[in-house]
Amino acid sequence: MASMNNACIVLILATLLMINNADAADPDIVTDFVTPTGSSPADIDAAFFTFTEFRKALFGAPSDASPFKVTKAGELEFAALKGQSVSFAALQYAPGGINPVHIHPRSAELLIVLVGKLKVGFVDSNNNLFTKILKPGDVFLFPKGLVHFQYNKDSNNHAVAVSAFGSSNAGTISLPNTLFSSGINTDFLAKSFKTDAETINELVTANMG
Amino acid sequence: MASMNNACIVLILATLLMINNADAADPDIVTDFVTPTGSSPADIDAAFFTFTEFRKALFGAPSDASPFKVTKAGELEFAALKGQSVSFAALQYAPGGINPVHIHPRSAELLIVLVGKLKVGFVDSNNNLFTKILKPGDVFLFPKGLVHFQYNKDSNNHAVAVSAFGSSNAGTISLPNTLFSSGINTDFLAKSFKTDAETINELVTANMG
Amino acid sequence: MASMNNACIVLILATLLMINNADAADPDIVTDFVTPTGSSPADIDAAFFTFTEFRKALFGAPSDASPFKVTKAGELEFAALKGQSVSFAALQYAPGGINPVHIHPRSAELLIVLVGKLKVGFVDSNNNLFTKILKPGDVFLFPKGLVHFQYNKDSNNHAVAVSAFGSSNAGTISLPNTLFSSGINTDFLAKSFKTDAETINELVTANMG
Amino acid sequence: MASMNNACIVLILATLLMINNADAADPDIVTDFVTPTGSSPADIDAAFFTFTEFRKALFGAPSDASPFKVTKAGELEFAALKGQSVSFAALQYAPGGINPVHIHPRSAELLIVLVGKLKVGFVDSNNNLFTKILKPGDVFLFPKGLVHFQYNKDSNNHAVAVSAFGSSNAGTISLPNTLFSSGINTDFLAKSFKTDAETINELVTANMG
Amino acid sequence: MASMNNACIVLILATLLMINNADAADPDIVTDFVTPTGSSPADIDAAFFTFTEFRKALFGAPSDASPFKVTKAGELEFAALKGQSVSFAALQYAPGGINPVHIHPRSAELLIVLVGKLKVGFVDSNNNLFTKILKPGDVFLFPKGLVHFQYNKDSNNHAVAVSAFGSSNAGTISLPNTLFSSGINTDFLAKSFKTDAETINELVTANMG
Amino acid sequence: MASMNNACIVLILATLLMINNADAADPDIVTDFVTPTGSSPADIDAAFFTFTEFRKALFGAPSDASPFKVTKAGELEFAALKGQSVSFAALQYAPGGINPVHIHPRSAELLIVLVGKLKVGFVDSNNNLFTKILKPGDVFLFPKGLVHFQYNKDSNNHAVAVSAFGSSNAGTISLPNTLFSSGINTDFLAKSFKTDAETINELVTANMG
Repeated sequence: MASMNNACIVLILATLLMINNADAADPDIVTDFVTPTGSSPADIDAAFFTFTEFRKALFGAPSDASPFKVTKAGELEFAALKGQSVSFAALQYAPGGINPVHIHPRSAELLIVLVGKLKVGFVDSNNNLFTKILKPGDVFLFPKGLVHFQYNKDSNNHAVAVSAFGSSNAGTISLPNTLFSSGINTDFLAKSFKTDAETINELVTANMG
Repeated sequence: MASMNNACIVLILATLLMINNADAADPDIVTDFVTPTGSSPADIDAAFFTFTEFRKALFGAPSDASPFKVTKAGELEFAALKGQSVSFAALQYAPGGINPVHIHPRSAELLIVLVGKLKVGFVDSNNNLFTKILKPGDVFLFPKGLVHFQYNKDSNNHAVAVSAFGSSNAGTISLPNTLFSSGINTDFLAKSFKTDAETINELVTANMG
Repeated sequence: MASMNNACIVLILATLLMINNADAADPDIVTDFVTPTGSSPADIDAAFFTFTEFRKALFGAPSDASPFKVTKAGELEFAALKGQSVSFAALQYAPGGINPVHIHPRSAELLIVLVGKLKVGFVDSNNNLFTKILKPGDVFLFPKGLVHFQYNKDSNNHAVAVSAFGSSNAGTISLPNTLFSSGINTDFLAKSFKTDAETINELVTANMG
Repeated sequence: MASMNNACIVLILATLLMINNADAADPDIVTDFVTPTGSSPADIDAAFFTFTEFRKALFGAPSDASPFKVTKAGELEFAALKGQSVSFAALQYAPGGINPVHIHPRSAELLIVLVGKLKVGFVDSNNNLFTKILKPGDVFLFPKGLVHFQYNKDSNNHAVAVSAFGSSNAGTISLPNTLFSSGINTDFLAKSFKTDAETINELVTANMG
Repeated sequence: MASMNNACIVLILATLLMINNADAADPDIVTDFVTPTGSSPADIDAAFFTFTEFRKALFGAPSDASPFKVTKAGELEFAALKGQSVSFAALQYAPGGINPVHIHPRSAELLIVLVGKLKVGFVDSNNNLFTKILKPGDVFLFPKGLVHFQYNKDSNNHAVAVSAFGSSNAGTISLPNTLFSSGINTDFLAKSFKTDAETINELVTANMG
Repeated sequence: MASMNNACIVLILATLLMINNADAADPDIVTDFVTPTGSSPADIDAAFFTFTEFRKALFGAPSDASPFKVTKAGELEFAALKGQSVSFAALQYAPGGINPVHIHPRSAELLIVLVGKLKVGFVDSNNNLFTKILKPGDVFLFPKGLVHFQYNKDSNNHAVAVSAFGSSNAGTISLPNTLFSSGINTDFLAKSFKTDAETINELVTANMG
C-alpha cells in the first residue's frame, strides 16, 4: 500500500513538473493574471505583484565585488509576470566592468542608464556595428535576437542600468560560455573561427571557469 | 499642369499618411529593425537607437511644477521601437502628486520606484483591490488592461518611477478625462454612477479644464 | 494512511486548479478543439458545440425585471470556445435601461441591435467621443480596450442586442464598480476626479451594492 | 510631360494597390483603430464605426429569391474592422435552402439562429461528423478550419442566422465551387474521388454555373 | 482503501489526459524547448531532437505498395517540435499516384520535389486554379488554408517530395473522406453539389473504404 | 516643372522603399497570399508560387568549390512566402566542410540530411551541448534562438541537407563574422573572452576576409 501511495506521489510530482513546462509559454492569457501552482485566487494579495530583490541591485556597485552582476525579475523570479509579456533586469558594473557579448533569444532589450556611463553596442545581421556612449537617463534599444554588449569604461566609478524586455522570460545566451565552455569540439571551433586548436584550447581554458 | 502636380502631391501625402497608419501595428517583424519612413538602411546609425529625453525626466520633481508628469519613450517618440514590442515611460510625482486612475489598453505595466515612496494599486475584473506602498528599488506589476493608479503620499518629497510595457505603444485611457471631459451625456453618466445630474455636472466642470 | 490519501487528493485538486489556470490562455491551438478536463475525445458529441442559454435571452426584456441583463457565451460558460478566439454576449435592456461605462480588456466588441433602438458610444484614447443611435439590424464596432456604453432611450419598449468578441474570454471592467465599490482610498479618488471626499463618499455609497 | 505625369499616377496607383495588400493583415494594432486610406483621423466620425447593410438581411427570407444568401460585415465591407480581429455575417435561408459544405481558412465560426430551425454540422480532422438541429436562440461553434454546413430543413418557412468570426476577414472556401468549377483536371478529380471521368464531368457541368 | 487509491489513479490519469490537451497549443514558448510529460530536463539528450522515421520514407516508392504514402514528422510523432512552430512530412508517390484534394487548417505548405516529377495545384478563395509541373529541386508554396493536391503523372517512375509547415501540427482535412465517408446526409450533399442522391451514394460507396 | 516631377518621383520611391520595410513583417495575413509591390492580383500565376533555385543546390557539392554553401528560399528570394510563416534553405557541404556556429533570431530550424553524413549540434541556454551524427533521411531540430552548427566530417564525400524554418525570413547571425569582423573594440573582446588583445587581433585578422 505504501508503494502504491509512493507511486501516486511520484505521478503527481511528475504531473506538477510537467505542468511547469506547460506553464513555460508566453500566450495572450485570457485571465487578468495567472495564479501560481498550488495557489487559489483567494491566496493572492498585493505582495504577489511586488518584487523587492532590486532594492539593493539598483543603487550601487555589485555587492559581491564581481566586475558585473545581473539581477533578473522575470517569470522565474517573479511569478506574477507569467503571461504578462514584460520583465526587468538590474545591471551593476564595477569600474571597468563589462557585460560580455550575448543574445536574448526571445525579446528586444530596452536599457536605461541610472548611474555612470556605459559604452553599449550591437551587431545587426548585415554585420554592421552600432555603438554609443550613454549618460545617466539615456535609453538604448538592442533589437530582437542580435549580439550585443555593455562596457563601463570608467575605471574609477561603478555604473548601474535597468533593462526591460517584451517577454516574461527573454533568455540569455552568453557567447563566451556557449562557445568556449560548453564542450564544442576543438577542431570544429578552430575551423569555425579560422584559427588553430591551440588558440581554441587557450580560449576554452580561460572561459571554463 | 500645376493642378495636375498638386493632385499628385496630395495623393502622395495621402499615401504617406495612410502608411503611417499601416505602420501602427505590433507584428513580429522579420527584419532586425524597421527603417523609418523616407530613410534608407544606410541612413541608420547608433543615434537612431538612442533616446535622450529621459536625461532630466528620471532624476527630479516634475520640471513644470505640475503635480505629476509622464515622459513617454514609445514608438511615437522613439522610432526605433517599432516592431520591438517594448517601451518605457518616466513618471515624476511632486510631493502629494498622483497619477489618476487609468488603463493601458495594449500592455501590462511593470514599474520600478527610483526615488521616494509610492502607494500603488489596481482593481481586477472581479472587483478586488490590490494596493502596496513601494520603496526605492521595488518593482510592481499592473496586469494587462486593468484600472490602476499611483500616489506619492509624501507631502514633502517628490518621487520618480520608470515603467516598462510589452508593447511599443501601450496607449493610455485616463478615466477622469474619458468619463468627465469627453462629452458623454450627463443623464447617462448619472444613471451609470447612480447619482444625479448635478453631481455629474460638478465632476464635468472640475475635469473639463 | 487516510491523511496520506487526503494529502494526495489535496495535491490532485491543487493540480487540477492550477491546470484550469494554465487552461486560461488564448493560444493558437494545434488541435481541432480542446477536450475539457476529465473528458476523452470519445465523450465529445454535438451537444458539446451547442449553447442553449440564449433561447430566452435573445428575444425579450430582462426576465428578472432588472434594467439591464447580460448573458455571456464565453469559454467559462461554453467550454467548446477554448482556443477558438471568438465568443458572444446577449444584451437585454428594459425600457430606459443602460449598460454603464465599461471596458473589455481582451477584445473589440461588435454589436448588432436585434430589437428596439440603442444609443451607443465610446471614447478613444485622444478623448474623442463617438455616439450613434442604432436601429434593428445596425452593427456598431467598439474598438479594442476603449471605454464604451449602450443606452435604451425608449422609456416604453425594451431592446435586445447581441455582441461578438474576438476572444473566448474578453473580460469586463465595469467602471462604476471598479472605481466606487472596490475600496480605492477616498482621498485618492477625490484627487483623481478633482472633487471632494464628500462627493466620492456619495458615489461609493450609491455604487456599493 | 503628360506621359511623365501619367507614369507618376500609375506609380501612385500601384503604390496604393500595394498598400491595400499590405493592409490585408490581422496584426495586433497599436492604435485604437486604423484610419482608412486617404482619410485623416479628423475625418472619422461615428458613422465610420456603423454598418447598416444588415437592416434587411437580418429579418427575412433572401430578398432576391435565392435559396441562400450571405451578407458579410468583414473588413472589406466595413473598414472600421481592420485590425480588430472580429467580424459578422448575416445568413438567410429560403425554405429548404442550404449553405453548402465550405471552410473558413482564418477563423472559427460562432452561429446564432434568429429565425427558424437549422440543421448544422461539421467534420473534424479525424473524420467524425457532428450534427445538431438548432432552434431560435441556439448557438453553435464550428471550430477553426473544418468543413461545415447549414441546412434549413423546413420546406415552408425561411430561417435567419448571424455568425461571428475571430478575424476581420475569415475567408470562405466553397467546396462545390473549388472542387468542380475551378478547372481542376477531370482525371485527377476522378482519381481523388475514386470515380470515373463521366461522374466528374456531370458534377463540373452542374456546378459551373 | 483500494478504491480510494483507484480513484486517485483515475484522477491522475484524467489530469494527465487533460494536460495533453492543454499541451496541444502552438504558443511562443518561453523556454528553449518543452520537456515531455514525465521527463525531467536531465533526461533530455540529443536523441530527443533527432527523428529517424524518414530514413526509408525519403528515398523510394511507397514501401507498402500503396499509390501514395505520407510520413509525418510533427509534434505527435516527434515530441521535440512542441512549441517550435515547424514540422515536416515525407511524401512518396507510386507511378501515377496522387495526393488527393485536401487542406491543412493550421499552416501553409512548402514542398520540394526530391525524386521524379509532380503536377501540383491549389485553388484560391476567388476560385482561381494555379497548377505547375515540378522537377527535382523545385519548390512550391501552397498558401495557408487553401484546397490543394499533388499528382505523379509519370506512369513508370515513382516520385518523392518533402514538405515543411510553419506549425508543429498543421493538420490535414482529406476532402474525399470528409465529404463522402463521414456520414453527411445524402440529400444535403446532393443539394450542395447540385446532383442527385444516386451520384452521391456512388461516391460514398467508393470512398467509404 | 521637371524638378517638380523629380521631387514627385523621389517621394514615390521613398514611399515604395518605406513600404518594403512595412512589408517586412510576419503577421497572420488575412488574404490568401500577398501580392508583391507593383503587381495586381491578375498578374499572379503559378510561377509566382514556384522557386527553381534549388535545382542545382539540392543534389551535389557546392558548385563554387567553397567548403560550405547556403541557398536560401525565404521571402527575400521567393516573394510568395510573405506572410506564410515558412521558408527553406539548401545546405551543401564539401568534404570536410562546415557551417560555423550561428543563430537564427526568428525561428527554430528543422534539418533533413539528403546526402552524406553530418555532425550537428547546439548549445542550450543552460550551456548544455547536444550533438548527433546524422545519416541520410535523419531529421534534427535546432530549437529557437540557440547557437548551433553542422560539420561534414567525411573528408572524401560531400553532404547535402535542406532546412525548414517557421518564419518567412528567419535571419542568420554568423558568430565568427559578428564577433571578429564587425569592428567590436579589441580590448572589449579580450575582456569578454578572457584573453589578450593579441589573440583577439589574430582572430580578427583571420575572420576579416
